Amino acid sequence: MLGTILHGACDVRCEEVPEPKILKPTDAIIRLSATCICGSDLWPFRGLNDVEAPMAMGHEYCGIVEEVGSAVTSIKPGQFVVGSFCISDNTCPHCRFGFQSSCEQHEFMTGAQAPLARVPLADGTLVATAELPSDDLIPSLLATSDVLGTGWYAAEAARVQPGSTVVVVGDGAVGLMGVLAANQREAGRIIAMSRHKTRQDLALEYGATDIVSERGDKGVAQIKELTKGVGADSVLECVGTKESMTQALQCARPGSMIGCVGVPHGVQFDGQQLFLSQRGLLGGPAPVRHFLPHLINLVLERKINPGKVFDLELPLADVAKGYQAMDERSAVKVLLRV
Amino acid sequence: MLGTILHGACDVRCEEVPEPKILKPTDAIIRLSATCICGSDLWPFRGLNDVEAPMAMGHEYCGIVEEVGSAVTSIKPGQFVVGSFCISDNTCPHCRFGFQSSCEQHEFMTGAQAPLARVPLADGTLVATAELPSDDLIPSLLATSDVLGTGWYAAEAARVQPGSTVVVVGDGAVGLMGVLAANQREAGRIIAMSRHKTRQDLALEYGATDIVSERGDKGVAQIKELTKGVGADSVLECVGTKESMTQALQCARPGSMIGCVGVPHGVQFDGQQLFLSQRGLLGGPAPVRHFLPHLINLVLERKINPGKVFDLELPLADVAKGYQAMDERSAVKVLLRV
Repeated sequence: MLGTILHGACDVRCEEVPEPKILKPTDAIIRLSATCICGSDLWPFRGLNDVEAPMAMGHEYCGIVEEVGSAVTSIKPGQFVVGSFCISDNTCPHCRFGFQSSCEQHEFMTGAQAPLARVPLADGTLVATAELPSDDLIPSLLATSDVLGTGWYAAEAARVQPGSTVVVVGDGAVGLMGVLAANQREAGRIIAMSRHKTRQDLALEYGATDIVSERGDKGVAQIKELTKGVGADSVLECVGTKESMTQALQCARPGSMIGCVGVPHGVQFDGQQLFLSQRGLLGGPAPVRHFLPHLINLVLERKINPGKVFDLELPLADVAKGYQAMDERSAVKVLLRV
Repeated sequence: MLGTILHGACDVRCEEVPEPKILKPTDAIIRLSATCICGSDLWPFRGLNDVEAPMAMGHEYCGIVEEVGSAVTSIKPGQFVVGSFCISDNTCPHCRFGFQSSCEQHEFMTGAQAPLARVPLADGTLVATAELPSDDLIPSLLATSDVLGTGWYAAEAARVQPGSTVVVVGDGAVGLMGVLAANQREAGRIIAMSRHKTRQDLALEYGATDIVSERGDKGVAQIKELTKGVGADSVLECVGTKESMTQALQCARPGSMIGCVGVPHGVQFDGQQLFLSQRGLLGGPAPVRHFLPHLINLVLERKINPGKVFDLELPLADVAKGYQAMDERSAVKVLLRV
């Protein structure tokens, strides 16, 4: 079959790869309904992570179960399933606390930018729907697998409450999903920081009440003006650079929480400075599995439309074009038809 | 009058100083019922903070109002009052959010290791009791001014819930008050890390369910053993060194919160490491004013006895002996009779 392999910085190819097989009795093989490219795929694509090339890409997925290993009990062939980008057994103490991304058996999904994928710990990782969903819901169901679940976690980690003032740093797909999540949590004011018209429009559609297009000190000044000099109750940091983290800290009020879901690159905190600022931090790889049943229901009930975040659709064979479009920010998020 | 002046590292003296006067119409002068030495006074005493000597020491206080400025409306001469170590107007947005230690007008109290002290922003900072309290409650009321309020904030920042598992790093007075606070919040298990018999006993009296006397990797291993390999839901970091912060992070489970109240000295966080650990942090100078009315009531109703944390009582003239005793850790906390 065709699969997506990263050979080195800026060198991603769709090429012939072996079909996945059941390797452990707890595995499942699924036939993907669609897959996509993640903002975090750009870190290795840009050569900013140490990676061992060749590397099978793709960790967002939904589809039909083809085959299950002998120890899989709850997931059955023919079911439509969504899984988290993070594999988990869903039974260990961390999973029971709702932190499946720190599961004692956790591993990260790979190789999902392909027509078939192997999902380890299928019973713990996959959530099946009662019926096969209609085709038009596939993009939104795919979004629950990572990008929506991650934006959702950012809002939870930042403790967004009904009525609270929220700043979202980053207008990538995760930031936009953070806007959606803050809106679902009934935030009173949602300020999206974005310089791009199409992303601003999407943010407004997802529930942003204000757009701040400036960055750095000017951006902070605008946030302060919008919040009467106080800063936000909750900030969603959806980028991971030093600049975006500084932005997040400066837009937050003392006693606020910053939900960090952008993977930090080159970010350091001085303990005393952070202490004196009284800003709280919580983040990390999102425990998407914890939110999946709820998010899947919201999609099936058509209460949310996270799939709209995909603004470019390509056949898998054109995956390299998709990486390029996201790298250049000409696309927010690319859906791949397999 | 006599007052306490730090002249340089390890050189603290009780000497003749001018009596404080009303400098601003919002000031009050109080006659202290008692005062004390704070663990944070040891940083400049040990020469670990840059200070401009001579420096008037002391920021924990309670006593009788002697005189108020012309703009003070709610506080009246003759009242018994307790104030926070952090001066606040109690009306700005940060104060209204419960973060009085980030008050737009905040400043830190000084000069309270003396018989009389000037308290700026008296209406916002001071809390008066309905009647004059009985003498035996003075140590506990004094404790609410900083050490109890700080331990209380640590438990709040660490989101201690009924039934949760809490680790307290640091067996100084603040750590012991953290144990008390976790107990009042009905934590299910409170593990105090302490190597000193007298402090262990006090921790047990304040509600600790377990004592871990090891530190470093051995200490972490014991915490993991006590929590079935999981780690604590909440950790109270009450020291502020690199070692204690590392201890706190390693004793916590993913998704936990660490309430940081030890002023960090030499603490740095790598953003990516913190992110991947999924530990949350919130800390800073405690907004004691926010908790004061509740804490004062708990003391007046004799539901808590934080004053027991004072294990050495000296006349003000012997303040230098008090600093020495706390520096050598032969005393947990020193009360000064003025």
